[in-house]
Amino acid sequence: MKLQVALDRVGIDQALQIVSEIHDVADIIEIGTPMILRDGMLPVRKVKAAFPQVTLLADTKIIDAGELEAAEAFEAGADIITVLALAWDVTLQGVAATARRYGRQVMADLTCVTDPAGRSARLDELDIDYICVHTGVDEQQSGKTPLDDLQRVMRVLRHSQAAVAGGISRDTIRAVRLAGAEIVVVGGAVSKAPDKRQAVLDLKDAMNRG
Amino acid sequence: MKLQVALDRVGIDQALQIVSEIHDVADIIEIGTPMILRDGMLPVRKVKAAFPQVTLLADTKIIDAGELEAAEAFEAGADIITVLALAWDVTLQGVAATARRYGRQVMADLTCVTDPAGRSARLDELDIDYICVHTGVDEQQSGKTPLDDLQRVMRVLRHSQAAVAGGISRDTIRAVRLAGAEIVVVGGAVSKAPDKRQAVLDLKDAMNRG
Repeated sequence: MKLQVALDRVGIDQALQIVSEIHDVADIIEIGTPMILRDGMLPVRKVKAAFPQVTLLADTKIIDAGELEAAEAFEAGADIITVLALAWDVTLQGVAATARRYGRQVMADLTCVTDPAGRSARLDELDIDYICVHTGVDEQQSGKTPLDDLQRVMRVLRHSQAAVAGGISRDTIRAVRLAGAEIVVVGGAVSKAPDKRQAVLDLKDAMNRG
Repeated sequence: MKLQVALDRVGIDQALQIVSEIHDVADIIEIGTPMILRDGMLPVRKVKAAFPQVTLLADTKIIDAGELEAAEAFEAGADIITVLALAWDVTLQGVAATARRYGRQVMADLTCVTDPAGRSARLDELDIDYICVHTGVDEQQSGKTPLDDLQRVMRVLRHSQAAVAGGISRDTIRAVRLAGAEIVVVGGAVSKAPDKRQAVLDLKDAMNRG
């Protein structure tokens, strides 16, 4: 299982500082949607230039113009990009085809999907590498976690692998591994920790225990 | 009715050039999602600084973290921002409340919504200023236009006003006005025209005729 660390509410310099601390212990570094909204692909270019060996995910949340937007992010240096699972199939197909052309990968984000298992069965047919069960920050306010949906989604996957995001901490990360996810995404559990490298090591320890 | 001109596949300098040609004849200038994906809020800041009197829409397509992402775009100078109609109600409420706090406006984009009229009835209750019936570029490949959905959506609106986007041209713009939309969004009909100012004037003429 891989640990993906999302950088959301930080500036580019702070992001570079955090990546310098964790690049050899985190499996995937995510440039989060809030960073892209503020600075576009610039943080993707800068992190990739400084740390070319890092696997970099750009949380682009594409919903239209799949081929063009995917190409933009891959050209900037993203190894994995995200598309909304709610997008029309033609958009998902365009994103997946573009990923194949670049030799890169696609994660579909199930956020706001009312039937995650049903939609995942279709995404699994559309050559999507990862399907991310995601409880967004606004939805977390109601106490929801992604674990129940993850178990339902796992049962329908044949080719795609599962990812999971939404308030995951040391206390819940082992349950995510046992459910079978390939990627677990953490945000505040690392970015809010005083010692970010130690936070990553602690999460990996908790993830792999027992 | 207002004419909104979307700038999508242009660089910042080209965008500033186009705005200099049309700022006094277009009603709303849109910084499109592809520009935001590439350069974040920088084009919003630059266009607003150069043309402070322009009504500027940032096509942010927010789907989570509504309050924070809306504030980011309003701080950059956007007068109107977009949120996906598919977002959870809590996110739409956060975006709408932030717009009220800044004295700005929100457009919800119906892209990928399977029941546009049903969802619009709910958006109308959530203090959303504009509801945009939108046939995305990928979906336009199948020949779909937004006109049928627009008529269905118009029937349920009580407070919100309608906007419409997706392949609108001189040939279809009058039908959009007659259906009752407050904002019509054009992209290629202006950005691909050799004389962009004349293209805007021609569209307004076709819009207001008869």
